[in-house]
Amino acid sequence: MAYAGKVDQRLHELLPPSDLAPEKLHEAMRYSCLAPGKRLRPALCLACAEAVGGPAESALDAGCAIEMVHSFSLIHDDLPAIDDDELRRGSPSCHVRFGEATAILAGDALFALAFQTLSNAPACADTVLASLRLLTAAVGTQGLVGGEAIDISSEGSAVDEATLERIHAWKTGSLIAASCTLGALFGGGDAAAQSRFAQYGRQVGLAFQIADDILDEVGTSAQLGKAAGSDRMRGKATYPALHGIDRSRAAAREHAQSGVLSLLESERTTFLVQLADFAVERLS
Amino acid sequence: MAYAGKVDQRLHELLPPSDLAPEKLHEAMRYSCLAPGKRLRPALCLACAEAVGGPAESALDAGCAIEMVHSFSLIHDDLPAIDDDELRRGSPSCHVRFGEATAILAGDALFALAFQTLSNAPACADTVLASLRLLTAAVGTQGLVGGEAIDISSEGSAVDEATLERIHAWKTGSLIAASCTLGALFGGGDAAAQSRFAQYGRQVGLAFQIADDILDEVGTSAQLGKAAGSDRMRGKATYPALHGIDRSRAAAREHAQSGVLSLLESERTTFLVQLADFAVERLS
Repeated sequence: MAYAGKVDQRLHELLPPSDLAPEKLHEAMRYSCLAPGKRLRPALCLACAEAVGGPAESALDAGCAIEMVHSFSLIHDDLPAIDDDELRRGSPSCHVRFGEATAILAGDALFALAFQTLSNAPACADTVLASLRLLTAAVGTQGLVGGEAIDISSEGSAVDEATLERIHAWKTGSLIAASCTLGALFGGGDAAAQSRFAQYGRQVGLAFQIADDILDEVGTSAQLGKAAGSDRMRGKATYPALHGIDRSRAAAREHAQSGVLSLLESERTTFLVQLADFAVERLS
Repeated sequence: MAYAGKVDQRLHELLPPSDLAPEKLHEAMRYSCLAPGKRLRPALCLACAEAVGGPAESALDAGCAIEMVHSFSLIHDDLPAIDDDELRRGSPSCHVRFGEATAILAGDALFALAFQTLSNAPACADTVLASLRLLTAAVGTQGLVGGEAIDISSEGSAVDEATLERIHAWKTGSLIAASCTLGALFGGGDAAAQSRFAQYGRQVGLAFQIADDILDEVGTSAQLGKAAGSDRMRGKATYPALHGIDRSRAAAREHAQSGVLSLLESERTTFLVQLADFAVERLS
């Protein structure tokens, strides 16, 4: 994927080198943030910039900032006190590899670097500031971090559909939606365009989340790059647990389709349509 | 202190209410961030805005953002995997009161809210963006988080003076210096003024850090609001451990004085001079 290559190259430049003090902290940040991955969020960011007519490069630093936020959240979620996951993307989690203290601080440092990167993004002050307002709202207590909080507090207890939707919308949907909105913003799209791309991101994000929940049930650890069945073992609230596998598959398809239909026809680039398909293709 | 009152009132408004979901997360954020404290950093921020001729209110949201960052760093530093402190400001630490998972997330959420608050500060886009660049640099791997990383990696081993100075400058100095710089910036001070106030902040920050290290050696737990002698027990790098108590006292005094001398005479407001005195007064 061409987008992912650009993102990896830029991440490599933005992350401090691991021979600069504090070396271990920088090494842990690079280990987690540069680990092989789909780069789904930054790829979406770049693709949405292009879909509104801008160059992909206009959204490159924003996409990297979002990948750093994503990486920070994975490191903290994997900690023993939260999800206690020892594998991430097929390798030892950050705390397994570097110790818990360094993992906590590497997450914090990636979070700080994300906002620093975005605040230095090459665009006019109004655009950069608007992007910071969007991203900070997306990661706060009514976004990424709040969704994780509800997720862990609901473990082992019966969760109704409204709560499950809130967990998904906040924990996964908000950052994916922000990836698309920021792409449209840096690409030069107006408020209406940003809103359409946010809707695309929310819907496709939901499709990915439901599909991930299904794969956690039916996939193998090798396919997932982490322990399979871990959601069920922890009594996590998931879509398949509430609705069964078949209804979940159908719901993922509907969300993916609805995401594409949120866009104007001219905005439905091959990449954005294929990505929505990819979210659910993995299930067949 | 009039500044602290304004800050507490504004923090009370900015922090999400604890009856809003996710309730426990919001409660933990308020518990830690509104705990009684000196509000040293935001008070400095407001005082520096006034010292350059602006209203204190111009720097109020910036000061609150800085207090949120400070509060985030205390929560994470107190975690079992890092400093393992059970007391903070005389009360149970966040993780003792709310559990480790919520404490990690409350720290993350305060960090996000800090940048959100700053990005919404009432000033022109260029000023707000400049403040975000300053604050994100001050908390990154060559600032607050990096200083903590070096601090824990040097526990139990002999630390030379250069390393100790770097720990102090990054872990404590950078956020206190940023408090002063942001105050001067929002108060309308030019680049030269911002630089003078940064220097004041670095020097007074060092005075406070050395004094805190001395108090950890000679104070009681009741005076400190946390376990006394905890630095020594953990083999932490401190100024008194390297130079003894007497030389440390003298160094604290010199830094406080040098901070005041960094400012123009017209900028040496009663508050800023008294605060520099206060840093070392506690030692007599």
